Amino acid sequence: MEVDEEAAMRDISTLTDSVSWNEKGLVPAIAQDWQTGEVLMLAWMNAQALACTIEEQRAVYWSRSRGKLWRKGEESGNVQHLKDLRIDCDADTILMKVEQVGGIACHTGRANCFFTQLDETGWQVCADVKRDPDEMYGKNHE
Amino acid sequence: MEVDEEAAMRDISTLTDSVSWNEKGLVPAIAQDWQTGEVLMLAWMNAQALACTIEEQRAVYWSRSRGKLWRKGEESGNVQHLKDLRIDCDADTILMKVEQVGGIACHTGRANCFFTQLDETGWQVCADVKRDPDEMYGKNHE
Repeated sequence: MEVDEEAAMRDISTLTDSVSWNEKGLVPAIAQDWQTGEVLMLAWMNAQALACTIEEQRAVYWSRSRGKLWRKGEESGNVQHLKDLRIDCDADTILMKVEQVGGIACHTGRANCFFTQLDETGWQVCADVKRDPDEMYGKNHE
Repeated sequence: MEVDEEAAMRDISTLTDSVSWNEKGLVPAIAQDWQTGEVLMLAWMNAQALACTIEEQRAVYWSRSRGKLWRKGEESGNVQHLKDLRIDCDADTILMKVEQVGGIACHTGRANCFFTQLDETGWQVCADVKRDPDEMYGKNHE
């Protein structure tokens, strides 16, 4: 490793040390559209995912179901370019403003994951699928 | 309990049964300003907190530190009136649009909890305190 790279890794480690990781080494990370303010999704990060997010300037999560790093958009192309990164007052939640490539954050092919809304009759789907998930992923959904 | 109340409780129980509570019976709940789209905070709900949120049309969280229901604003007056309630595609995150009374969501007296921003030099506080926490709570902070 070059001296500059070592220094960069040390710096990022200092940044991730500021986060209050939970007992599993994770915190929730919210992705918000940097222009509209729309909340796109919530996923989870560990220290490595946060370090990669900062280094690569794109959202990298920790997939709890797959037990590995998840570079958002690696299969679908729906990359989230980082525009702003914050932690909350307790340092146990991350908020990112992102540019959502393709305008689709959800694995269902919808613009965001919050398409199930409560009305007088119960939970209702309130957003259309913009792109067929089979087209985005083949048979391997995120 | 009256027949109408029983029916209402049964209905709300059906709604909370749709949520994928984690092993501790909790899910993260995001509060977003209903007009500006600003993400105000993230806290946690259990089924009872969600039921109260729906019944009372205000944000009610589960305080993990205090181990009890937390009616947001009960001490500070900074109540969050519910305008819209959603769950995500996996039913394991709640998103609320709220009207934030007093324009202050954070226990530090700032408008929202995400006032620590990453820049080239590290984490930096990027928002001012709007109201002294001691004035909001006396000595008992939320």
